[in-house]
Amino acid sequence: MSRFIVIEGLEGAGKSTVQRHVVSWLEARGHRVITTREPGGTPLAEKMRALVKEVHEEPLTMEAELLLMYAARVQLVKNRIQPALADGIWVVGDRHDWSSQAYQGGGRGIDTGLITQIKQAVLGDFKPDLTLYLDIDPAQGLARARHRGELDRIEQEKIDFFERTRSRYLELAHADANCDLIDASGNEQQVKERVLACLEQRLCTPG
Amino acid sequence: MSRFIVIEGLEGAGKSTVQRHVVSWLEARGHRVITTREPGGTPLAEKMRALVKEVHEEPLTMEAELLLMYAARVQLVKNRIQPALADGIWVVGDRHDWSSQAYQGGGRGIDTGLITQIKQAVLGDFKPDLTLYLDIDPAQGLARARHRGELDRIEQEKIDFFERTRSRYLELAHADANCDLIDASGNEQQVKERVLACLEQRLCTPG
Repeated sequence: MSRFIVIEGLEGAGKSTVQRHVVSWLEARGHRVITTREPGGTPLAEKMRALVKEVHEEPLTMEAELLLMYAARVQLVKNRIQPALADGIWVVGDRHDWSSQAYQGGGRGIDTGLITQIKQAVLGDFKPDLTLYLDIDPAQGLARARHRGELDRIEQEKIDFFERTRSRYLELAHADANCDLIDASGNEQQVKERVLACLEQRLCTPG
Repeated sequence: MSRFIVIEGLEGAGKSTVQRHVVSWLEARGHRVITTREPGGTPLAEKMRALVKEVHEEPLTMEAELLLMYAARVQLVKNRIQPALADGIWVVGDRHDWSSQAYQGGGRGIDTGLITQIKQAVLGDFKPDLTLYLDIDPAQGLARARHRGELDRIEQEKIDFFERTRSRYLELAHADANCDLIDASGNEQQVKERVLACLEQRLCTPG
């Protein structure tokens, strides 16, 4: 049975690198795999992503930002993730619903109940089978992200925005039995070993 | 004191023509006036409008459509309508919240409670001071719209979609003391006279 695995974490936590390692691990075990990123992952959702990520002259209200995130997410879940899972294909996602909870809820301070209401209304009980939360100190993560080049509209927020975002991530990670919290502070090889150990434990049935 | 006047109705009801008459009537009385259209009306909201109105290869889910409508509406209300009203400028809108209630709720059958929840969450109690609902038989309205040229993605829906949309409009109009229901079936001059009579009665204080 195919599953939906999500990698969550702050800028510079190493999500896309870990995504590649997870895909290789699954493919080595004979699974068909697709990857997604959020917001985005379908032609229409990528257009919504552009609206959220680009720096505009007109301020994007935090309410519109939240609604765009969920509009993109619904497109991705209904048009790509659910059809793949139904076909027996595994899905490894770079970000999913926790990003809205953490960035818009924790970071921007939008009421958590409101975010949950919108999520529940448009996606119901759909959620990942496994979440790998890559925990990183915001200062270290942003330093890594800066090495990659220019920061986008959200990455330009101040450090306390990311502190609040991380706090919310940690709350979510501690409350969910289907999440592994992974220390993402080491080098790529160290983080990779931690991730693969989690996959072995979660996905390899004995015998 | 400036006010927010909204013109609602089906395709071909004559909203944009009526909007021009309302603006002229207000300007003749010395008011400063701006017009809006929904979805759209700010640079970002117009980009969201394009996503909703264009025909795409990827199907736009009805949930994403609803969220995009509200994302555009929040941008318009916070960045354009509310600042204008605060400046003493009247706002005459071609469509507003009832369009979501009527098209997404009535037409597509999305749960009314859900639509109201999203509206309340992002816009609170903000609403028009006066709504002019232009009532038209869907067949007649669509025939008029067809004369204007190619139909967009929403206008390509079947006639029973518009019948359901009109029913919901009528429910909203009957339940709101700040709405005038205007028979939009006559020619432009007839409809204009009905509209101006409403404005005289609603907005001209005696003495």
